[in-house]
Amino acid sequence: MVALAALVIGYVLLKEVLAAGQGTAKMQDIAKAVQEGAAAYLKRQRNTLAIFGVIVFLLLFALPADDWNEKIGRSIFFLVGAAFSFAIGYLGMWLATQANLRVAAASREEGGREIAMRVAFRTGGVVGMITVGLGLFGAAVVVLVYTGQAPKVLEGFGFGAALIAMFMRVGGGIFTKAADVGADLVGKVEQGIPEDDPRNAATIADNVGDNVGDCAGMAADLFESYAVMLVAALILGSTAFGVHGLIFPLIVPAIGVITAVIGVYITKARAGEGGLVTINRSFYISAVISAVLSAIAAFVYLPNSFSDFGAGYENSGNPAVIATIAVIIGIVLAAIILKLTGYYTGTEYKPVKDVAQTSETGGATVILSGISVGFESAVYTALVIAAAVFGAYLLGGGVALFAVALAGTGLLTTVGVIVAMDTFGPVSDNAQGIAEMSGDVDEKAAQILTELDAVGNTTKAITKGIAIATAVLAATALFGSYSDAITKTLSGMGTGVVTGMDAAKSFVNQVVSPNTLVGVIIGAAVVFMFSGLAVNAVSRAAGAVVYEVRRQFRDIPGIMEGTTRPEYGKVVDIVTRDSLRELTTPGLLAVFAPIAVGFGLGTGALAGYLAGAIACGTLMAIFLANSGGAWDNAKKLVEDGNHGGKGSSAHEATIIGDTVGDPFKDTAGPAINPLIKVMNLVSVLIAPAVVQFSIGPDENTAVRIIISLVAVAIIVAAIVVSKRRGTVLSDTPAEIQA
Amino acid sequence: MVALAALVIGYVLLKEVLAAGQGTAKMQDIAKAVQEGAAAYLKRQRNTLAIFGVIVFLLLFALPADDWNEKIGRSIFFLVGAAFSFAIGYLGMWLATQANLRVAAASREEGGREIAMRVAFRTGGVVGMITVGLGLFGAAVVVLVYTGQAPKVLEGFGFGAALIAMFMRVGGGIFTKAADVGADLVGKVEQGIPEDDPRNAATIADNVGDNVGDCAGMAADLFESYAVMLVAALILGSTAFGVHGLIFPLIVPAIGVITAVIGVYITKARAGEGGLVTINRSFYISAVISAVLSAIAAFVYLPNSFSDFGAGYENSGNPAVIATIAVIIGIVLAAIILKLTGYYTGTEYKPVKDVAQTSETGGATVILSGISVGFESAVYTALVIAAAVFGAYLLGGGVALFAVALAGTGLLTTVGVIVAMDTFGPVSDNAQGIAEMSGDVDEKAAQILTELDAVGNTTKAITKGIAIATAVLAATALFGSYSDAITKTLSGMGTGVVTGMDAAKSFVNQVVSPNTLVGVIIGAAVVFMFSGLAVNAVSRAAGAVVYEVRRQFRDIPGIMEGTTRPEYGKVVDIVTRDSLRELTTPGLLAVFAPIAVGFGLGTGALAGYLAGAIACGTLMAIFLANSGGAWDNAKKLVEDGNHGGKGSSAHEATIIGDTVGDPFKDTAGPAINPLIKVMNLVSVLIAPAVVQFSIGPDENTAVRIIISLVAVAIIVAAIVVSKRRGTVLSDTPAEIQA
Repeated sequence: MVALAALVIGYVLLKEVLAAGQGTAKMQDIAKAVQEGAAAYLKRQRNTLAIFGVIVFLLLFALPADDWNEKIGRSIFFLVGAAFSFAIGYLGMWLATQANLRVAAASREEGGREIAMRVAFRTGGVVGMITVGLGLFGAAVVVLVYTGQAPKVLEGFGFGAALIAMFMRVGGGIFTKAADVGADLVGKVEQGIPEDDPRNAATIADNVGDNVGDCAGMAADLFESYAVMLVAALILGSTAFGVHGLIFPLIVPAIGVITAVIGVYITKARAGEGGLVTINRSFYISAVISAVLSAIAAFVYLPNSFSDFGAGYENSGNPAVIATIAVIIGIVLAAIILKLTGYYTGTEYKPVKDVAQTSETGGATVILSGISVGFESAVYTALVIAAAVFGAYLLGGGVALFAVALAGTGLLTTVGVIVAMDTFGPVSDNAQGIAEMSGDVDEKAAQILTELDAVGNTTKAITKGIAIATAVLAATALFGSYSDAITKTLSGMGTGVVTGMDAAKSFVNQVVSPNTLVGVIIGAAVVFMFSGLAVNAVSRAAGAVVYEVRRQFRDIPGIMEGTTRPEYGKVVDIVTRDSLRELTTPGLLAVFAPIAVGFGLGTGALAGYLAGAIACGTLMAIFLANSGGAWDNAKKLVEDGNHGGKGSSAHEATIIGDTVGDPFKDTAGPAINPLIKVMNLVSVLIAPAVVQFSIGPDENTAVRIIISLVAVAIIVAAIVVSKRRGTVLSDTPAEIQA
Repeated sequence: MVALAALVIGYVLLKEVLAAGQGTAKMQDIAKAVQEGAAAYLKRQRNTLAIFGVIVFLLLFALPADDWNEKIGRSIFFLVGAAFSFAIGYLGMWLATQANLRVAAASREEGGREIAMRVAFRTGGVVGMITVGLGLFGAAVVVLVYTGQAPKVLEGFGFGAALIAMFMRVGGGIFTKAADVGADLVGKVEQGIPEDDPRNAATIADNVGDNVGDCAGMAADLFESYAVMLVAALILGSTAFGVHGLIFPLIVPAIGVITAVIGVYITKARAGEGGLVTINRSFYISAVISAVLSAIAAFVYLPNSFSDFGAGYENSGNPAVIATIAVIIGIVLAAIILKLTGYYTGTEYKPVKDVAQTSETGGATVILSGISVGFESAVYTALVIAAAVFGAYLLGGGVALFAVALAGTGLLTTVGVIVAMDTFGPVSDNAQGIAEMSGDVDEKAAQILTELDAVGNTTKAITKGIAIATAVLAATALFGSYSDAITKTLSGMGTGVVTGMDAAKSFVNQVVSPNTLVGVIIGAAVVFMFSGLAVNAVSRAAGAVVYEVRRQFRDIPGIMEGTTRPEYGKVVDIVTRDSLRELTTPGLLAVFAPIAVGFGLGTGALAGYLAGAIACGTLMAIFLANSGGAWDNAKKLVEDGNHGGKGSSAHEATIIGDTVGDPFKDTAGPAINPLIKVMNLVSVLIAPAVVQFSIGPDENTAVRIIISLVAVAIIVAAIVVSKRRGTVLSDTPAEIQA
């Protein structure tokens, strides 16, 4: 019901956005080229991913489940989750390409700033509504249809969503940054022409990239965060409370839908205030409303005592109070991350000002100060997330993990507004691009768009912080499902009697077992590997762009004079081909690494692996996102006339920072969030099979080792193939260089 | 015995080194200034650390032990470990300052390359001998005097060594890079004068830094690695096999002494081969000898069956075979790390060539490609280390952890040669500095020194890789001691009877408990925090150097013309003061973070914390060391005339990379190794107290929470104080800027 309402509201907002003015013919021309490029990319990506989806669909049947009904449901809802994820990504991209133009057009009108902001933010509102609508809808259908068997089917749904989102994040991230870095290297650095100059053959590809990476990738990612969190909450809820536990986790996000609508509608820029202030206000108002409504729902819907749930829960306190506090923990967590990220990446605070200041002593100090900002912000954000997990855990008593999951749903109530905020970033970035390329906007309009762009940088960093927080909460909750999956399979196997002392010793020995520690190291290593692969992929694809743009400048006369149009389409094609090729290696790594560890080293090591990946992934993701955001905005500060302004040596230094930050914040960083979820869900899915082959009648070490070795072989092969494509820009094959 | 022999051989080598020629008067002048600066720094550092040492000495009495004999022994040997660590650091520094001059002088002679190499390498040999000599001596005395109570006393010995080494690494690391970066920023970047130009007031400080950081810090660090590994092996050996287990771990490193002597003496450069080839040959020869001798020792000394050790060991295979293989695993691990690091940071292989190549497209691509190289090498190195741990663990059966520790002692047999290799780096770097400043060497001699310097960069990276490998092996073994400490304290507490099923469930639930996961996240966060603090400290101290050097150029006439000598001493003073001030925050973090986690969240979370810190720390340490090494050598490649050579824009780009890499590879990266050990030992030391307050008759949550909060308060206070000193170069207080 609420899910459908969300979809309807999304439609209404959509109409509003599309009704806005579309600007000059030249602007429309450019926007059309961008739309076509983006659509072509997503179409090709769909075809690639479809093959992958079908393979996984079939592989899922090989994993144990209670009966065929469950197996079929799991595989089918895997496809549904995947399709939803892709559809939302596509929609996010399509909408953004429509909105870019309208924001650029709006900036030219009287009172343009307010209109531009409203259009940009409402566009995000549409995506937000549809994200929560489809997520809630999918999960609700599973719960209604499968009831008791819902958890296994939900695993499929969440896995589909996460897997596709990861691919879209990685592929889109490579696309957008390859085009961006490539365009900058030839344009700004070699030829000395400004950003978004129409003479640069890579500009259209750059704008296409913003749409397929920041919009399509981000929308799919946030949908996935939403779906997986919901899945985790539902699985744990059903384990803890049966059917009761399946309803409340759906009510909380439904409340979120309502407040998100309010949040999107109240976003109105007051005269004279910064864009970030406006957006933050909407966020806080909707957060408070969410908290109040959730508390009411908890007290109305949940019983006042756990004893209603039967034996074993007597000492766990008041469920309504626990649920309310857990949800509030989630909401407060979102607010703190918002503040922290805003502080570390906003142009008006000390960290970014410091980074800008270091530009006076050159590029090296810019890099060092940005890395420091990234490290520092990662530590504080991770500690806050850890505190939230621990708080919910302490609170929960007998239902600790469910409380963690509820904190996650609390965080989710803010997703509607968050998506709106995130879409704001690429839309304003693109609007600026269109405006600059068309040359049809005046000084004042350009100023408006630049300011919105800077706000967009911060909102993008904020959503990444919140996305990674959902990853940690969801992962912690899924950890619970993982443990459940193992104990369920273990049931009926153990019969021996050991003393409490032995149990305690065994626990301590196992937690500190070298085997588990090896798992933790491998988990952390996979995060480093994945980040390195993503950064490398960008360098390589950017190299291809550089050579193509150079070739066009050299071979096509008249480009530099502006009399001939460069062949924009060629660059789009190259980047499309490269980014689809590049996404396979990190993708395979994410899926097969947990398989290799689980079957090869056992469940203890796999648990360690997940813990290592979550811990290291959280820090790395925030580090990459925030250092990138800080560099980007430090550059904006210098461009605004500080420390010598555009063209100064300080500006050059910040451009180095920004270029380094590009693949950090838009390729590697954001992809870690779905990576963590994919690895978690793979672990949950394979856990019963691992246990089955490890202990009891089906014990078969040979099979386990073979599966593990096959997984390792797949990963190694993928890495070797990508290695052979070279490691750096200048390794680009001769036929492209020519 | 062998320990004393090692010390004697060290003395003989020392005589040889000191007998070498000392060059011109001007060179001696410069060397003298460097010696004085380094000695002054270490003296002030000694006074600072002495206070700290006394406090810890007293605090140790507060921690539980069996009786006063054990408590007193632990505290006293803490001081002994600390004193040895400092003494070796001091000696390393002193020797290096003697050797620098002699290497520089040797380069001027006929056949200079071979002589220079020999002097540089033998200097390292002295330090190596004394390192293993004192380490073995200290551990042997403890074992002989305390026998049954040795483990607790050894904890104190190891802790003292690790703590002081960490401080020397951090302090020395900040010193060397603050001076280096500061000198480069004003000299190379602002004034356009060459590196090591005598007109730059920071050059002497830069050379002093090489000695206090790379020599003193490194020597203390390697001594600590040696001592802690030995401590871990002895503790586990005594747990597993009683007195038998205390002897074999001492025999293996004793063998290492013999082979190291051989290794150092056979290092002779053949005509026409690269310096790295020569050094590698010595390494491999001594590694093979070590392996053979260890195998012989195992078969002679150890029984052929575990049944000799009594009940419980029947199924564990042949002890001699297991011990031999474990030791060989350690030696092979060292060899692989050597190869991997050489590949990723050597000028003759693809990665560094690639990084150099990217300099053609500017500083940003240099940074990105260097980061990729760092990530990649970190992943492979970490996986190799993990494989070694896992291999030893599988092998060990009932004595798995002891096998891991034996692998560690195998690794240790190579320490003598490793120290020699590492000292080679700063000595040749400094020799180059002295040569350049004095102007008394010709083209050919300069060429020799430059080549040696490049080899030194790689050997430095190699030792860092091996140091971190010892950290992981020692930490894994100490993990065992940690678990021992807990189970021992638990003994006599548990009485309940639970079923095997419950035990299995409890294990799974605990490994995947959110509490443990929170610990893992905090552990990983501390590594990021520590790295960030170290990098920041360098930026800040470098800022002070920049302002001072600028001031001298401005206020003292005649410096630029070379007619007046700049006030070198002032810069040395500033850096000394700053680096001693800056080392407190990371130091307090290392000691108090495990206390906060352990008392606040319990033993499970503390185990998670350690695992997170080890995993993330390993990857981060190797990433920082290798990316820094790759950048440094990429710069050398360009300076050798590739991609445009000195003064080209490519050169500028690699200078950016090198400057970023400086605090990575010489401050943050190497300090992570002792950091891990300090945190591990703190955990082992406090574990009994944590358990005591958590369960049983002494349970006292209030005390636990208070201790935890005090620890948190200390960390926060330290961070706030360092924050108030500003975060970046340009935040340097006005009185220094003036």
